Amino acid sequence: MKPEYHSLKPTLAITMGDPLGIGPEVVVKTLSQDSFHRICNPLVIGDPFLLQNTVRELDRTLQVIEAGEDGIQGEPGKIFTLPASAFSSDRDPRRLPQEESARAAFAYVEKGAHLALSGKVHGLVTGPVNKEAIHRAGISFRGHTEYLAEISQTKKFVMMLAGERLRVSLVTTHIPLWAVAKSLRDQNILNVVEITAQALQVFFQIPAPRIGVAALNPHAGEKGLFGDEEAVILRAVRKAQEKGFSVSGPWPADTLFYRTVQGEFDAVVCMYHDQALIPLKLLHFDSAVNITLGLPFIRTSVDHGVAYDLAGRGLANSRSLEEAIRVAAHMALCKQGVGS
Amino acid sequence: MKPEYHSLKPTLAITMGDPLGIGPEVVVKTLSQDSFHRICNPLVIGDPFLLQNTVRELDRTLQVIEAGEDGIQGEPGKIFTLPASAFSSDRDPRRLPQEESARAAFAYVEKGAHLALSGKVHGLVTGPVNKEAIHRAGISFRGHTEYLAEISQTKKFVMMLAGERLRVSLVTTHIPLWAVAKSLRDQNILNVVEITAQALQVFFQIPAPRIGVAALNPHAGEKGLFGDEEAVILRAVRKAQEKGFSVSGPWPADTLFYRTVQGEFDAVVCMYHDQALIPLKLLHFDSAVNITLGLPFIRTSVDHGVAYDLAGRGLANSRSLEEAIRVAAHMALCKQGVGS
Repeated sequence: MKPEYHSLKPTLAITMGDPLGIGPEVVVKTLSQDSFHRICNPLVIGDPFLLQNTVRELDRTLQVIEAGEDGIQGEPGKIFTLPASAFSSDRDPRRLPQEESARAAFAYVEKGAHLALSGKVHGLVTGPVNKEAIHRAGISFRGHTEYLAEISQTKKFVMMLAGERLRVSLVTTHIPLWAVAKSLRDQNILNVVEITAQALQVFFQIPAPRIGVAALNPHAGEKGLFGDEEAVILRAVRKAQEKGFSVSGPWPADTLFYRTVQGEFDAVVCMYHDQALIPLKLLHFDSAVNITLGLPFIRTSVDHGVAYDLAGRGLANSRSLEEAIRVAAHMALCKQGVGS
Repeated sequence: MKPEYHSLKPTLAITMGDPLGIGPEVVVKTLSQDSFHRICNPLVIGDPFLLQNTVRELDRTLQVIEAGEDGIQGEPGKIFTLPASAFSSDRDPRRLPQEESARAAFAYVEKGAHLALSGKVHGLVTGPVNKEAIHRAGISFRGHTEYLAEISQTKKFVMMLAGERLRVSLVTTHIPLWAVAKSLRDQNILNVVEITAQALQVFFQIPAPRIGVAALNPHAGEKGLFGDEEAVILRAVRKAQEKGFSVSGPWPADTLFYRTVQGEFDAVVCMYHDQALIPLKLLHFDSAVNITLGLPFIRTSVDHGVAYDLAGRGLANSRSLEEAIRVAAHMALCKQGVGS
């Protein structure tokens, strides 16, 4: 192997996710594939003992190796793991109480965030955790995104979901549908447009990204006939245009995603969760990647939950983690100006 | 041709749509295809002179023949037309003022509704009109569906959109997004479930239709964390189950459409316009059919507008009208118990 190639491989911290969920399984399935060691140096943050168990259960020939915080070089056939859980390796983590498992999952995230913030890794890829369980364990945690924003003192951040055919950015996320209309502010919409456009330039090598902004109401409100929030959205679009962004809207949401898939836009800025997630999951059910834009480091995530009911059965689909790693590695290369 | 076959061909009234729009063009393009005369007896309600003009402009060899209200037998190469406009045939309808054009479009609908109500045709297929222009012309008209419900004294009706891979029924339609949550009533949701299920049995030959009901809030409200309207939806689902319908939900909307396309449900009951239309148009941009369920007659419609800007250029896509006719003909046969 050429050292020049290696020197460009980004190091990615990959949190193992809740020990009781499908996280360990999808990590093992993904890192069994040599290709992932060629595009990055994966450093799993989790529990080596549990990963070893999972390797055995899945009948793979991977070697799980304990690593420190510094300098690992990805190698096919090996999973370098930084232990970060609060429980000792002589207990089977599969038999942990949910609370303890959740606490361990949080410890992985904490460690991963620390590595990413300190620049020891090029990016952070997070496995699935159970927000509710972490909360019940007495840790204030509203979700990965909010946590990472808080510890990095990031005020403006954006949740983007990306698949091969569609990228969506969200203006509001986990709030009731009735609260969406009154939550819209032109400044927030403008922020999402800006952060999305800049991310497409830096991380996706699109020099002049074309952003389509979705309307809130059916038929974009049909000239105020059903709803007038389109006026707020229009103000944001105009401000973004004045700043030089190639952005348009508000467009009726029912045709916007089709137009985007046909090639008219590089990303869609959406007003609410399901407006974005319905088309995204329809096209990219198990291959969408969740990307947090605006943080001081690259962060991608699987797009699924812990799936406790599936865990331990060898049936979990690792596609989402594979894509999350692929996208993070690609973003890291693009950021250095050497993306494909 | 066998008379037995002919006797099963439903007669469909097809309104030509706004004379200034793309309606006449899509009618001519559709009825140029022999297949449509084999599946139904199409009776166009519109203006023979304009249709003749359109045939010439498009360089087709169709014969436009004036017909009465009774007994036409579809024949390839011929467009049987029942004149119903207020303007005389010695004026070029392409040069009509918009108001007069809108008034003519409304006259076609009025006539078509009359034929359908009186049982002279088996179904009504409507071309595109301009609601706003009809309204400006002094006619109280909120849309085809509302008009047809009113004149047929139908209280419970449902807007369904159907494509090959996805069928969606709407609980609310053209209202602002902020108003959706407070508009939901379990009785209305139950009505939509019932009418949808019954329609799938009668018109689509699905003996025990499986209906998925969408949630309103992201992640179906995540146990009340963001929104509690799922409780209202759940009440409706339970009532429908008690009545023996095979229905479930409320399901998180972001994965429900994927599951439906994978074969889990025969139709999705949606809480608001874009929840239904975003996935539908993404999959069936130019082939979706708008079906009004609950009327005393079969009614389908194109799923596009008048597209004044496209009219007269020969560029309009007739796919939606073709599907609307195909679906109406199929529904009519199924109703008679002879569907394929």
